[in-house]
Amino acid sequence: MDIKITKTDKPKQKPVPEELGFGNYFTDHMFVMDYRDSSWQDHRIIPYGDIPMSPATMVLHYAQTTFEGLKAYRTKQGDINLFRARMNMRRLNQSNYRMTLATFDEEDALEAIRTLIRIDEEWVPAETGTALYIRPFVIAADTFIGVRPSNTFKFFVILSPVGSYYKEGLNPTRIYVEKKYVRSVPGGTGMVKAGGNYAGSMKAQIEANEKGYSQVLWLDGIERKYIEEVGTSNVFFVIGEEIITPELSGTILAGITRDSVIQILRKLGYTVTERKIEISEIFEAQKKGLLKEAFATGTAAVISPIGVLANDDESITINCGEIGDLSQKLYDTLTGIQYGEIRDEFGWIEKI
Amino acid sequence: MDIKITKTDKPKQKPVPEELGFGNYFTDHMFVMDYRDSSWQDHRIIPYGDIPMSPATMVLHYAQTTFEGLKAYRTKQGDINLFRARMNMRRLNQSNYRMTLATFDEEDALEAIRTLIRIDEEWVPAETGTALYIRPFVIAADTFIGVRPSNTFKFFVILSPVGSYYKEGLNPTRIYVEKKYVRSVPGGTGMVKAGGNYAGSMKAQIEANEKGYSQVLWLDGIERKYIEEVGTSNVFFVIGEEIITPELSGTILAGITRDSVIQILRKLGYTVTERKIEISEIFEAQKKGLLKEAFATGTAAVISPIGVLANDDESITINCGEIGDLSQKLYDTLTGIQYGEIRDEFGWIEKI
Repeated sequence: MDIKITKTDKPKQKPVPEELGFGNYFTDHMFVMDYRDSSWQDHRIIPYGDIPMSPATMVLHYAQTTFEGLKAYRTKQGDINLFRARMNMRRLNQSNYRMTLATFDEEDALEAIRTLIRIDEEWVPAETGTALYIRPFVIAADTFIGVRPSNTFKFFVILSPVGSYYKEGLNPTRIYVEKKYVRSVPGGTGMVKAGGNYAGSMKAQIEANEKGYSQVLWLDGIERKYIEEVGTSNVFFVIGEEIITPELSGTILAGITRDSVIQILRKLGYTVTERKIEISEIFEAQKKGLLKEAFATGTAAVISPIGVLANDDESITINCGEIGDLSQKLYDTLTGIQYGEIRDEFGWIEKI
Repeated sequence: MDIKITKTDKPKQKPVPEELGFGNYFTDHMFVMDYRDSSWQDHRIIPYGDIPMSPATMVLHYAQTTFEGLKAYRTKQGDINLFRARMNMRRLNQSNYRMTLATFDEEDALEAIRTLIRIDEEWVPAETGTALYIRPFVIAADTFIGVRPSNTFKFFVILSPVGSYYKEGLNPTRIYVEKKYVRSVPGGTGMVKAGGNYAGSMKAQIEANEKGYSQVLWLDGIERKYIEEVGTSNVFFVIGEEIITPELSGTILAGITRDSVIQILRKLGYTVTERKIEISEIFEAQKKGLLKEAFATGTAAVISPIGVLANDDESITINCGEIGDLSQKLYDTLTGIQYGEIRDEFGWIEKI
């Protein structure tokens, strides 16, 4: 793969770290490659900016689009740590396969990400809690409005310096158990990162916000009783001595933070069980005094403790609404590895 | 509403009617309006062409997009007949509501469509089977990559002169009963025209094509036995003296052609029942010699007779693989009304 590099002659002013937020700012360059005539071509890094797009471009009509989210972290020594990027590229290809977008060479994509970060390395923020969020995404590019998979695609990587995902930081969240809307069902697309999964979930998110909750807890679409995800994150519960999380049954995303958390917990000697979890089991465990902690996991927020879990009939406050010891330990361990302050025993970090 | 009109100074050459196909060509102009600061504004008709789009535009990541499809027909007298456009605008608003896009004034949107068609009226083809396909669509326009509904949107109308949707014309199709993939489930988005429904269905379509079928018949996502849709169309079966079609239970699209067909059939004195239909009932009816016809309905193809219906275990040939009398009569009646050759007793036609 040969990447043609065109550098900007108008570098932008970088935002002040306190105002970063999540997903608001983008760096000076982006990576683009095109799929046509059955191959990926024109690998290039160009100044970040608008692209001309036909209103007939298929992605705008039939939502054939997939994406990934990963982060690079600035260490105290000034290095840049890329976290488990190979997993993201593998998952993006799995998403493309399910959504009938062209798959790509994962090593080429990794090299594109590395090269882009090196060019925009000054954009990787150094303050505590900040990172460089990396957003690879693929879109259908045919200018045609019949319903069929596109024959051409565009693969982008854009970079965004970010602060914490949640403005409140690691504060416990209020989560609403969703009964009306369904995110995913066996035979659907819930196990991949396809745009439509996110568009379909927004109504539930808004209605939960209006009720005073920050996110929903999704239940399975068939029996409406098994726990699937929280918002766009995987979810864990600590019940007695057991740590449980929904199994990867084909409707939930195989989160990379989820996998990292499981590996860290097992290394620390905890028992982690991936299995079906009925929502009633969580409320029961609380009544019995066995529910110690609950937390969501994802790239954007890393670990997000759940303080309140409620449906229309009952509401429970978990761990007195405080951050649990295990949630804190996992957050510290995982971010410690990511920022290079804890030795990476897992081979997750790649220096850029 | 004031529409600012900017006409092209480079009108394109119009395609020859035989080469139209579906969704390949677009007219000289398009309608655009923007939603920002809580209102739709800058209603404008401009030359059809590329729009500059930021790679961070939310629609490219989270697929927050809705669309409609309707047609205008050239009559023998040279008039242009717009078919049930008000229904499409109402449905688009329903889609926007479910998908958390901004709703809009339906009368304004209708006026935009009329104005655009008048400007590009020479593009409405006159040959038998051709029409002007009208594609309104709405996309999320925020340049932000956190997961939440967009605050800004763009509403487009583009126009495409089209021939028949299926190259073969009204030839009966081969349909595969889909058991592996699911299109929609209660609580999901299957009842609206959201891009993600279409992206999610493409894998099934491709696998059916590879098996030698043109489309899939979708079953419900819960019990996997009730008939929902065929490809992107509604579906009807004629069993004995009864004409049946799946009821609008919240997972299938309320097709406007479906509604038109039901109204025509009832006017003609037929009994039409909207109810749950088990796939086994269709195969049973065939064995008993009661299954007379099956056909799909949609704006693009109007009426599409089903010749073969098969799963992995059995295959039935309906009406000897021929176009049924009722399918033909419905096609002739509906297109007769659309092209102004049959009197419109329903109030469906608006002269442009």
